[in-house]
Amino acid sequence: MKHYTSINDIDNLEEWIVDAKAIKKNPLEHRKLGKNKTLGLLFFNSSLRTRLSTQKAALNLGMNPIVMNVSNDSWGIEFGDGTVMDGTTAEHIKEAAAVVSQYCDIIAVRAFPTLTDKAKDESEEVLNAFKKYATVPIVNMESATAHPLQGLTDALTISEYAKKERPKVVLTWAPHVKALPHAVGNSFAQVMQKMDVDFVITNPEGYDLNPEITRDVPVLHNQEEAMKNADFVYAKNWSSYENYGQILETNKSWMITKSLLGNAKFMHCLPVRRNVVVEDAVLDSDSSLVIQQANNRTFAAQLVLKKLLETL
Amino acid sequence: MKHYTSINDIDNLEEWIVDAKAIKKNPLEHRKLGKNKTLGLLFFNSSLRTRLSTQKAALNLGMNPIVMNVSNDSWGIEFGDGTVMDGTTAEHIKEAAAVVSQYCDIIAVRAFPTLTDKAKDESEEVLNAFKKYATVPIVNMESATAHPLQGLTDALTISEYAKKERPKVVLTWAPHVKALPHAVGNSFAQVMQKMDVDFVITNPEGYDLNPEITRDVPVLHNQEEAMKNADFVYAKNWSSYENYGQILETNKSWMITKSLLGNAKFMHCLPVRRNVVVEDAVLDSDSSLVIQQANNRTFAAQLVLKKLLETL
Amino acid sequence: MKHYTSINDIDNLEEWIVDAKAIKKNPLEHRKLGKNKTLGLLFFNSSLRTRLSTQKAALNLGMNPIVMNVSNDSWGIEFGDGTVMDGTTAEHIKEAAAVVSQYCDIIAVRAFPTLTDKAKDESEEVLNAFKKYATVPIVNMESATAHPLQGLTDALTISEYAKKERPKVVLTWAPHVKALPHAVGNSFAQVMQKMDVDFVITNPEGYDLNPEITRDVPVLHNQEEAMKNADFVYAKNWSSYENYGQILETNKSWMITKSLLGNAKFMHCLPVRRNVVVEDAVLDSDSSLVIQQANNRTFAAQLVLKKLLETL
Repeated sequence: MKHYTSINDIDNLEEWIVDAKAIKKNPLEHRKLGKNKTLGLLFFNSSLRTRLSTQKAALNLGMNPIVMNVSNDSWGIEFGDGTVMDGTTAEHIKEAAAVVSQYCDIIAVRAFPTLTDKAKDESEEVLNAFKKYATVPIVNMESATAHPLQGLTDALTISEYAKKERPKVVLTWAPHVKALPHAVGNSFAQVMQKMDVDFVITNPEGYDLNPEITRDVPVLHNQEEAMKNADFVYAKNWSSYENYGQILETNKSWMITKSLLGNAKFMHCLPVRRNVVVEDAVLDSDSSLVIQQANNRTFAAQLVLKKLLETL
Repeated sequence: MKHYTSINDIDNLEEWIVDAKAIKKNPLEHRKLGKNKTLGLLFFNSSLRTRLSTQKAALNLGMNPIVMNVSNDSWGIEFGDGTVMDGTTAEHIKEAAAVVSQYCDIIAVRAFPTLTDKAKDESEEVLNAFKKYATVPIVNMESATAHPLQGLTDALTISEYAKKERPKVVLTWAPHVKALPHAVGNSFAQVMQKMDVDFVITNPEGYDLNPEITRDVPVLHNQEEAMKNADFVYAKNWSSYENYGQILETNKSWMITKSLLGNAKFMHCLPVRRNVVVEDAVLDSDSSLVIQQANNRTFAAQLVLKKLLETL
Repeated sequence: MKHYTSINDIDNLEEWIVDAKAIKKNPLEHRKLGKNKTLGLLFFNSSLRTRLSTQKAALNLGMNPIVMNVSNDSWGIEFGDGTVMDGTTAEHIKEAAAVVSQYCDIIAVRAFPTLTDKAKDESEEVLNAFKKYATVPIVNMESATAHPLQGLTDALTISEYAKKERPKVVLTWAPHVKALPHAVGNSFAQVMQKMDVDFVITNPEGYDLNPEITRDVPVLHNQEEAMKNADFVYAKNWSSYENYGQILETNKSWMITKSLLGNAKFMHCLPVRRNVVVEDAVLDSDSSLVIQQANNRTFAAQLVLKKLLETL
């Protein structure tokens, strides 16, 4: 593995989950592996869990994390080829990525989509520019279309809490007040296709995710039907993919309630808006795995960093 | 001690001061205690001394500090119970505190008061939410009503510089251009009541601190009279408590001058506005202890972190 | 050396370059020197390379870096003597510098010029206030008039890539859309005067740098003539010094092109605006040394920190 920027970079999910569980049991076992190595964490966007858990993972491996909020701490970065840079951007990614590569042994990047320019978002301009111009491994801390650290976390969590072989897992769209990216939904859909689960997606009409990602996964527009006998319900809002980045007229009834959930475990990547995406009664019950998921972020990140450190 | 959020968490001030002095003499003695432990420093507000000294204290104990400016680095946090989160807050403290607890062994929080909503401020909403929902010890880096790291620092400093038993200590209100919190005044008043000193408070009428905090401490409205024969004069501005958060008409004559100070030592928590709160001649003289106080912030924080680490 | 704030602090450039090359060969050799020592990095302005490379240098020496964005993380600092601080500044540099000195063993500061008040900029108010009131060594991470970490880096880079004795080095002004400081140009001009090179400066009329800095260096207003047979061309924009901080009418033809460059190596401190300062064809060719320069920032900073640590 050269970079970790997509669920496709997981060559063998089953083995990765075994490895992640071992790391979770003994998080400090490999703390010499990262000695004198630096992880650069570059945030083009806000972050809480990713910011803290990735630093924690690096520290567990003995690495030195250096955090940078790109826009606040420095200046606008240019991504266009051949641009006459007489506008607001002050440094080209060609220089920025090559330079940061010299100070950091691994670079982790967070860069959200525009949600207005589909082609630009799908080109993963920022992430791919780092892959192209950096000379060290790149870790995706959520890009325009993918959040593979979250996806790996989620697979680990399901593996830990599954009480039967081939559990039923439902990814359900949920209401929200803002137009949100598809990254979490995409990576979850991808990682579930690599796992031995009965996987179903449900969302209102007009909200189907990119079919190149969901492939043969059944997509139902009837939430109640989809959630029947579910073992795990993963809720997440996303804006329309077809009417790219739009919020269509939606039914608040898609909010996850205790009665809708039944006996399933509830999952969400957080942050979550209470009583909009999911009601208090779910989050405050034993059915919720959201805190356990967040805990697993550390070990997913640590596995990825460990694998990349081993290639250096 | 489960948390350190108030001067009331100090069980035996005399012993704590002895311990703090020992740490100051040999700051690296316990540097293995914090090995592989993480201190999360969450700032809802600006900070210089607290930011640096608390990190320094953590490093002296071998801990890894992780700093986060909550509002800039992530998003608005919701504190209300049962709220339908369709507004500006994106994550509930229930999740945020529980999640951060999984990445950090101790969480330190700074969250200033509104100074407009007395009931909300007195409820210590942010701090108490962290105490309630976090699963690790909480350290108060200045909350709505208290700044107990500063209070402990101040007691240590007075103990170091006292030249006689039971010195006279005066907490005096001083002028300022902005409405300021009561936190520093409160914690100083509380810690002085635990110390064997002759303690007096002086402030203009209308500026009396919360009587539940000042209790039996004499409060004089005549500054000159209060400061007579003082050994230590601690100056600090605060807005009105009665007319909550207001700046009443004030007399600039309350500014601390060399002649007003007499032979007393001058103390202030910093930052201090020169020639508004106190004149240059005081700060630039040997009578001022403000730099020594700031130095003690490290050792007060280190004692608190050490005590909390020992409970883990 | 007490501080490193100007190229004048380099007592023997030749020796320093030898030492820097040794550090580059074995960056971790002195990693015990900085053990339990703290480097405070105070940014009054944005930074990418300096921020990361100086932290990296500190880590290579085993130091703990603590980063602070002064304006965002804390509040306005007052530099005036005798000011009645009833305005926007909340803390005087006298206190701030003395206090930070107690938490940090070395303080590194970045503070750009106003470009409107020449006298103020030339007084190096911020940097000199730190030198005056701090009690620990100060490192200049780019001040109003100097960027000596960059200058040292540039001398090291030229020394590495020179293919003959006494190479010809040209510092050329280049176009830009914003009014920029003179700091990089100044420090480069100063360090070249300490090196055995054939050094020439070229800029349009009206853009001559401070003659007290350029001294006897030939300043040509004909770029093409100046660049003839150059071995190294260092491009940098700066605003007018005479019409202080102004952008005069300029000719875009001063942009560095492949044909203008000839066989010379191209240097720039970065960030650089592509196709404004220099065309893509130069930066994307083997003639460009900008990435190698940026790499050397770590080792220049590390040499400076090592020298200062040895005095503690």
